[in-house]
Amino acid sequence: MKQHHIAMLGCGRIGQMHLNLILENFSNVNVVAIVDNYLAKEPHYKNIPTYPVTQLEDVLSQSRLDAVFIAANSTAHVDLIKAAIKYKKHIFCEKPISFDVTSLEHLDKELKQSNIKLQVGLNRRWDPDFCQIKRDVDAGKIGNIHIVKITNRDPKRASIKFAKRSGGMFLDFNIHDFDTARFITGSEVEQIYAAGAVLVDPELKRINDIDTSIITMKMTSGVLVVIDASRETGYGYDQRLEVFGEKGNLQVDNIGRTVTQFMGGNKTETAPPHYSFIERYKQAYINQFAAFLHYLATDDVITPDISDARKAVEIAIAAEKSLADNQPVIV
Amino acid sequence: MKQHHIAMLGCGRIGQMHLNLILENFSNVNVVAIVDNYLAKEPHYKNIPTYPVTQLEDVLSQSRLDAVFIAANSTAHVDLIKAAIKYKKHIFCEKPISFDVTSLEHLDKELKQSNIKLQVGLNRRWDPDFCQIKRDVDAGKIGNIHIVKITNRDPKRASIKFAKRSGGMFLDFNIHDFDTARFITGSEVEQIYAAGAVLVDPELKRINDIDTSIITMKMTSGVLVVIDASRETGYGYDQRLEVFGEKGNLQVDNIGRTVTQFMGGNKTETAPPHYSFIERYKQAYINQFAAFLHYLATDDVITPDISDARKAVEIAIAAEKSLADNQPVIV
Amino acid sequence: MKQHHIAMLGCGRIGQMHLNLILENFSNVNVVAIVDNYLAKEPHYKNIPTYPVTQLEDVLSQSRLDAVFIAANSTAHVDLIKAAIKYKKHIFCEKPISFDVTSLEHLDKELKQSNIKLQVGLNRRWDPDFCQIKRDVDAGKIGNIHIVKITNRDPKRASIKFAKRSGGMFLDFNIHDFDTARFITGSEVEQIYAAGAVLVDPELKRINDIDTSIITMKMTSGVLVVIDASRETGYGYDQRLEVFGEKGNLQVDNIGRTVTQFMGGNKTETAPPHYSFIERYKQAYINQFAAFLHYLATDDVITPDISDARKAVEIAIAAEKSLADNQPVIV
Amino acid sequence: MKQHHIAMLGCGRIGQMHLNLILENFSNVNVVAIVDNYLAKEPHYKNIPTYPVTQLEDVLSQSRLDAVFIAANSTAHVDLIKAAIKYKKHIFCEKPISFDVTSLEHLDKELKQSNIKLQVGLNRRWDPDFCQIKRDVDAGKIGNIHIVKITNRDPKRASIKFAKRSGGMFLDFNIHDFDTARFITGSEVEQIYAAGAVLVDPELKRINDIDTSIITMKMTSGVLVVIDASRETGYGYDQRLEVFGEKGNLQVDNIGRTVTQFMGGNKTETAPPHYSFIERYKQAYINQFAAFLHYLATDDVITPDISDARKAVEIAIAAEKSLADNQPVIV
Repeated sequence: MKQHHIAMLGCGRIGQMHLNLILENFSNVNVVAIVDNYLAKEPHYKNIPTYPVTQLEDVLSQSRLDAVFIAANSTAHVDLIKAAIKYKKHIFCEKPISFDVTSLEHLDKELKQSNIKLQVGLNRRWDPDFCQIKRDVDAGKIGNIHIVKITNRDPKRASIKFAKRSGGMFLDFNIHDFDTARFITGSEVEQIYAAGAVLVDPELKRINDIDTSIITMKMTSGVLVVIDASRETGYGYDQRLEVFGEKGNLQVDNIGRTVTQFMGGNKTETAPPHYSFIERYKQAYINQFAAFLHYLATDDVITPDISDARKAVEIAIAAEKSLADNQPVIV
Repeated sequence: MKQHHIAMLGCGRIGQMHLNLILENFSNVNVVAIVDNYLAKEPHYKNIPTYPVTQLEDVLSQSRLDAVFIAANSTAHVDLIKAAIKYKKHIFCEKPISFDVTSLEHLDKELKQSNIKLQVGLNRRWDPDFCQIKRDVDAGKIGNIHIVKITNRDPKRASIKFAKRSGGMFLDFNIHDFDTARFITGSEVEQIYAAGAVLVDPELKRINDIDTSIITMKMTSGVLVVIDASRETGYGYDQRLEVFGEKGNLQVDNIGRTVTQFMGGNKTETAPPHYSFIERYKQAYINQFAAFLHYLATDDVITPDISDARKAVEIAIAAEKSLADNQPVIV
Repeated sequence: MKQHHIAMLGCGRIGQMHLNLILENFSNVNVVAIVDNYLAKEPHYKNIPTYPVTQLEDVLSQSRLDAVFIAANSTAHVDLIKAAIKYKKHIFCEKPISFDVTSLEHLDKELKQSNIKLQVGLNRRWDPDFCQIKRDVDAGKIGNIHIVKITNRDPKRASIKFAKRSGGMFLDFNIHDFDTARFITGSEVEQIYAAGAVLVDPELKRINDIDTSIITMKMTSGVLVVIDASRETGYGYDQRLEVFGEKGNLQVDNIGRTVTQFMGGNKTETAPPHYSFIERYKQAYINQFAAFLHYLATDDVITPDISDARKAVEIAIAAEKSLADNQPVIV
Repeated sequence: MKQHHIAMLGCGRIGQMHLNLILENFSNVNVVAIVDNYLAKEPHYKNIPTYPVTQLEDVLSQSRLDAVFIAANSTAHVDLIKAAIKYKKHIFCEKPISFDVTSLEHLDKELKQSNIKLQVGLNRRWDPDFCQIKRDVDAGKIGNIHIVKITNRDPKRASIKFAKRSGGMFLDFNIHDFDTARFITGSEVEQIYAAGAVLVDPELKRINDIDTSIITMKMTSGVLVVIDASRETGYGYDQRLEVFGEKGNLQVDNIGRTVTQFMGGNKTETAPPHYSFIERYKQAYINQFAAFLHYLATDDVITPDISDARKAVEIAIAAEKSLADNQPVIV
């Protein structure tokens, strides 16, 4: 089986999660380099040669290198992609690539011209449960879709410091839900109305952000989509999907931490949902990287690609405008 | 135990359901008369003296009569209430009393002046599951409420003929959800945005009605409420409630027709939800009438009363305006 | 619709439960008399003429009387049945009729000779969930049955005083499970092995009774049946049934007191099972009496009849022998 | 972190499952050799040097080798263990080690004398759900245990050829359940009664084996344990555990293949249980090997060890005697 040679560009909390999953699950992948200023100072993480960002081009110039996995600070993503393109390396890039639609359009052109492949880390498309729903929908199990409901709630709010540079709730957090809506319905967002509130952390008001939202979208297919989101549940990572159509209703429920049950006293207890994206979407992360290896080896059309990333950003920006103006916005 | 003497004013499909539940469950209630043109033609239904509407005043003038149960055509509700007030009879009236806010205000005044009690049939307030959630919320089990989600989906769409005179989806169908939002949050609707679509029955377009909706409301307390509704599921009466707050999430799930399960072939099967309001809210109908008897016997404040009916109608009318203008509307 | 005239013979805790259900649900039944020494001393219960046992024959001699509902002390059941036969009244009798197989055989003969109908209160046969499983089994949904599992656990142990005269755990409590095994499999018990223990209430040792048991039965059809039972759960009335066959597995789960759910802190909470037989088998009690009225009106074969009662007792007695000898016993 | 050097002795279907999990999950383990006649003929599996059994001693004599993982044909386990002891290598051995109690006792002695560690692959002890129940039990969540119920059902029966040399249903299949009973209750089996039947595959009669069983055990602690088992469900690997005690009931339910749900037509569908031990106990296999590495690095008492293996075999043999004599057997 062909061995792939990959470099990790950026290897913080998320990057290390991806790296561990790659090393555990893909014996045909050699991670030949990590580019990360912090890890470069340490003894080599996972015995992998590690370099500061100043040596990025030395890494990219390695001829055996097939592709890069970008999981750096979002702000660095565009430059890292451009550098990878320059050295003709294929790219897996974590979301968000950029919040600037124009630069995403330029990148899209550059990629096409240079025949460089890019897959973006909109992971829901690779979750086994979301995929089952997609298959059922495509198989006509519920006929035409009427309503899509997405619940996306984080276990614990991020720091204000992170929130500040995150792009805000829609661009950083609901971006996944906007992609899920397009993925499940196979159609585009026509109009969006976003209601938001600060109910978890008053501090967010100061930076003009929110922590609670109900977002309604009309798709070109006529389907109505609603997203309810919160930055903090306290009980875990609440991730649910519901697709209602003319012949029935499909749901993805939360995954419990165990399948144990206790009946006693005056109640029945079961386990709470998984705590975070790391447990909940582990298989999705593995499957999306398996797909990336498949895309490297074939000419299959990549999904989700940079245009999917761009469309999700366009929807998020429309949501921000809707929230600011308290009006529905045409996308 | 005091015997109550009640007359049924209007006794069609809904009226007969109520009458049967009263006869089964309330041995201290004598139903002394039914006023219904159709039933008056038949041999006496349930052996109860039955009169055409022309003899309404003869019935109301019976001194032993304590109260009337109004379940006639919605269009007749206001006149029947006025007649009952004239004869000093207390009133239980099915929803909707009227879609005209002004006449509801006048009725409210008349009732106060004449010391006549009126309870309206917004039945969710008496459902044991909804009440459990309300108790948990009031007990602070989830702290401050952030999001309320209501799913209200009918098993089978009504005829166009019915839809025409029903007042439309918001006034006829979602009226319950508007009341539920006020009941659960204990606060009022400040703003509403309604997205609607005709996805079930194209005929509804001709009468300017819809069959699918997502309604977002901001409450004065800051809580966000979202309602998703459909006129037809095919699988049963889909009735769910979710209340998310700072300390957790409360849910009312559907009630299955049985608690049986089948594991076999490539799936696990359980029973579908109850088919209709008759099975799903049976206990709610019983409990709301028990409350009515309690209100007759005490000076306790009636809930839901005519002002609750009026507020639900005001919200529904605002929803219609929002849908027509595709704008959020202040209530 | 034909009016039936019924007398309640014995009207204690269980009798009153039945009487209330009859009055609520069967408008075509007139309960014309109660025979009960305690109630006879009170003002008439439910406005029904009530007599001491000394006036039993006066009641039975009423010509309008169609049938009697026997819910007296078990020890009185046989004599009451004989009295009813003498006066040619049909009989519904609560379990247990008698623990004496011979007298049950004699009663069976007398009933046949006198053409008096008798239905016994083995209520599981009328529970909607158990019936659904029976229908699925008969429809071949799981093919041939291999294993039947019955869980029967009481919420709170009875007093030693009651336990003493109850006939013991097998005759008083598991008697239902023995009937369920015959009902579901449609075959007879060939061999039984009973393991028992006193783990709840040491007092039971003194009266040579138990509170915890695992009973294994081989049916003539080859099916294996296992019953696990306890006199006290603390969390409610744990009633489950499982039927495993060549094509799948059927289950009846517990019925929760509500369908509410709470996710919060470190767990998910749902409602406990119904507390007692009164809530759990309410519909079964209603349905079995509806069946009795049907049997009164038709020549349909009665089930469960006195031979079903006798067979359940024979199994219980075999279980006692097995427990005493610590050996499997052929029934 | 210390690197461990391991050799796989036997690497068929089960061995390869273990090897893959080790390579995926334990970066501190070097599998330096595979001893397997079939794989030795192939190009090196997983790039690991592979030898025929004739070269076993060459492999064992490698000084860097810390331990061996034995997953050969059961019949070879004892000799492989002895060889490992001779070369002072620690041992992880899949179940069954042997069906001969005496040889297990001798091995136990040899291991103690030679200070060689051996852990046996009774994997339920490492399943996260079973462990959660064990922790809850030990924490007193349900007080004293009264009843333990174990459901163990295979998705598809093995071939008669396999069944023949498997040791029979009790020694090959229920062996896990016997260990689970000891693990959960922390006490020993005092008496066992096994009921068995051939309901799946008549062929099994010819080789004097069964495919369906109900096994009742009395533990020294007084707890009653019941196991229901089948060789074929058709719907997946049905693995459930229930522990009932004075303060409540603990359960491990099946793990569904997905968390998706479909409501439609006249039913609600969810996913079936995992298909086989490979999916169901994946984490248990990983955790038990992590424990083995821990035991290699510490002086902690190994569990489950060879005496646990021996006790499970003793129970299985008692079960066989009970089935043959149709009598309870003292263990």
